[in-house]
Amino acid sequence: MSEPFDAVDVIRTKRDGGEVPEAKLRWMVDAYTRGYVADAQMSAFAMAILLNGMGREEIRVMTDAMIASGERMSFAGLGKRTADKHSTGGVGDKITLPLAPLVASYGVAVPQLSGRGLGHTGGTLDKLESIPGWRAALSNEELHAQLAGDVGAVICAAGAGLAPADKKLYALRDVTGTVEAIPLIASSIMSKKIAEGTQSLVLDVKFGSGAFMKDASRARELAETMVALGADSGVATTALLTDMSTPLGLTVGNANEVRESVEVLAGGGPADVVELTVALAREMLRMSGIDADPAEALADGRAMDAWRRMIRAQDGDPDAPLPTPRETHEVRADRAGVVRRMDAFDIGIAAWRLGAGRARAEDPVVHAAGIDLHAKPGDRVAEGDVLFTLQADDETRFDRALDALAGAWEIGDTAPAAAPIVRDRITA
Amino acid sequence: MSEPFDAVDVIRTKRDGGEVPEAKLRWMVDAYTRGYVADAQMSAFAMAILLNGMGREEIRVMTDAMIASGERMSFAGLGKRTADKHSTGGVGDKITLPLAPLVASYGVAVPQLSGRGLGHTGGTLDKLESIPGWRAALSNEELHAQLAGDVGAVICAAGAGLAPADKKLYALRDVTGTVEAIPLIASSIMSKKIAEGTQSLVLDVKFGSGAFMKDASRARELAETMVALGADSGVATTALLTDMSTPLGLTVGNANEVRESVEVLAGGGPADVVELTVALAREMLRMSGIDADPAEALADGRAMDAWRRMIRAQDGDPDAPLPTPRETHEVRADRAGVVRRMDAFDIGIAAWRLGAGRARAEDPVVHAAGIDLHAKPGDRVAEGDVLFTLQADDETRFDRALDALAGAWEIGDTAPAAAPIVRDRITA
Repeated sequence: MSEPFDAVDVIRTKRDGGEVPEAKLRWMVDAYTRGYVADAQMSAFAMAILLNGMGREEIRVMTDAMIASGERMSFAGLGKRTADKHSTGGVGDKITLPLAPLVASYGVAVPQLSGRGLGHTGGTLDKLESIPGWRAALSNEELHAQLAGDVGAVICAAGAGLAPADKKLYALRDVTGTVEAIPLIASSIMSKKIAEGTQSLVLDVKFGSGAFMKDASRARELAETMVALGADSGVATTALLTDMSTPLGLTVGNANEVRESVEVLAGGGPADVVELTVALAREMLRMSGIDADPAEALADGRAMDAWRRMIRAQDGDPDAPLPTPRETHEVRADRAGVVRRMDAFDIGIAAWRLGAGRARAEDPVVHAAGIDLHAKPGDRVAEGDVLFTLQADDETRFDRALDALAGAWEIGDTAPAAAPIVRDRITA
Repeated sequence: MSEPFDAVDVIRTKRDGGEVPEAKLRWMVDAYTRGYVADAQMSAFAMAILLNGMGREEIRVMTDAMIASGERMSFAGLGKRTADKHSTGGVGDKITLPLAPLVASYGVAVPQLSGRGLGHTGGTLDKLESIPGWRAALSNEELHAQLAGDVGAVICAAGAGLAPADKKLYALRDVTGTVEAIPLIASSIMSKKIAEGTQSLVLDVKFGSGAFMKDASRARELAETMVALGADSGVATTALLTDMSTPLGLTVGNANEVRESVEVLAGGGPADVVELTVALAREMLRMSGIDADPAEALADGRAMDAWRRMIRAQDGDPDAPLPTPRETHEVRADRAGVVRRMDAFDIGIAAWRLGAGRARAEDPVVHAAGIDLHAKPGDRVAEGDVLFTLQADDETRFDRALDALAGAWEIGDTAPAAAPIVRDRITA
């Protein structure tokens, strides 16, 4: 009975296009976390936010209220600059794997608190768990020691203590058609990154069929919103707007993506994965006051050394063989020509159906499942050339994966227009 | 697992400004009533409806789905025409009391299934319960018998079986800031009236400070929506758009409103109450194929006879003295002049604070509590003339009622512009 505000009043303000005052917005988030504000009230509020938007100051307050709902980490005692990266998720997006050790090899601490995959986009932790012995769960003490010492990079599971309000709100948005609200996406992502205590953050905001945001202009709006929010919250933030209409690299899955990441760390690997890894690393180094060409550390083995230290620090064996699939199935070109299109969404769905991803949060993934690509748009192929190798532990999975792949690729007579992966760079 | 549709898909369609197909909309209402669709999903849907609207066909389907959630009454066996009235609620709105017997005195059956008051607008059943012995709860058999016989009019409580989906949805809208959605208001009102089985319906759609809709253009939109919905659902429907910026008549409360209604039935009473009663009765008679001047039945006593039969049929004593208040308090004019304004909302709140209304559905009302007005806008008063008599069972209630009344009235030098109560008439 001593609640200072009324949820219906807060909802009405946003419904009628107004700005919710700071104290009321903080109360709404806090009261929802406590269970005083009901799910039905928060979902109506979320729909009003989705349709009427939020101002920059409201987004900052919303984010800060979500941070205040949980613990806040600090890396101030490390004696190092800290830089973090977040991707909005894509198909074949293994970039965190080479990126974290690459940046750490320059003496910057990289705390990558990551998640698992759900639906057609894979999860960084699922991929790393392909490595025998590697463990995702670290205590806060282990996390700090790993960042402070000569490893310098951590990729691990985010603790449940960061922004619990976001966790509750995200689950609600998922079942109420309110996931797509840009102010809520921005505050969800940024609340966790800010609570984590990084000094700088680079955002890989993707658009195209394999991305959460199909539309480039919506992705740009999200990127601009998060960059402004970072600036308003004291975290140096830069966003790259990147194309996710084609899978990144030549692997989509778990173990195969680790293999490709190691190729990149060894100075090889597909050009698009290298391009994006280097572009993101350059931003993280720049925000940490380091003007360097990160391609050098890929070429000279320093990034690979950092990778091996990082995997070992989390009980993984960087030299152990990765799991291999029991069954494979090849998809071949039905004509000669130039590959015009390989659709990220369809290929992501196919890999998911092969067992690489999960339908429910509690499902396991099959680490050896996934798809290897043997050609990318612009490549010339002969009739009968292998385009895809499907990998699974159970051959009954191939039929449904092949259904998803049916319209995923196109071979024509002329090459498609070449387009860079990184389309724009957004800074405060 | 055998649900044919997905709530998130339905919500997204409306969120994105689309039209929800009939089968999905029917399922959504049904699944919500069964508890399969959660409150949080329905409230997000309601907010999307509020902000993006619904088409005429969607409103018809929504209404029909709410009717299908419960029982449907029929008066087909009566051998009489049936006519009903609904008011969107106002201050001093006792019109149902003289109207039902007036129309019944022409041989038309009038089934007035009514509600109780909540907040600043009073409830018809609360008013009638001032009459010693009168009872609101009738069985379906009693209701039919009363309509079929020489009484012909019933004012009683609506059973819980009519449109239970509406009951559940209304309670949800009340706590989620989604009450104001015109498609939902229209379908809520009309689902109950259509389920009740009347052949024709007149709507008293009010605007102004004492009304639910303060704004005349929004009230007009609601009236047009309901008239179209009536036509689409096979119920002849006419709406009058009426001014609720000043209380109706000279009484606001319960017992005092019954007294004023009886004055009107006796051929007297305040001009505005008579004007609106006659205007609504004319519409009900016209839709029942009767071309008559209802003022005649007020003048010649036929309406009063019908009233006495109606009250007696429900065990009330039309000759018993009505309850009188223990305490009264007079508010006097602080200057001479012309009454320029008497604000319906403020006076409604004052009467409510005196005990005439309830704050929670389970609270009792004080039948003798309320306010008598001794002047209306346009009336000339001398300094010290009594403007209001406040009535309560407990003198501690006067202070807070007087606070509400403080800005409720204005005396000036010139008369306000005269304006009719009925501003427009809307038909299909």
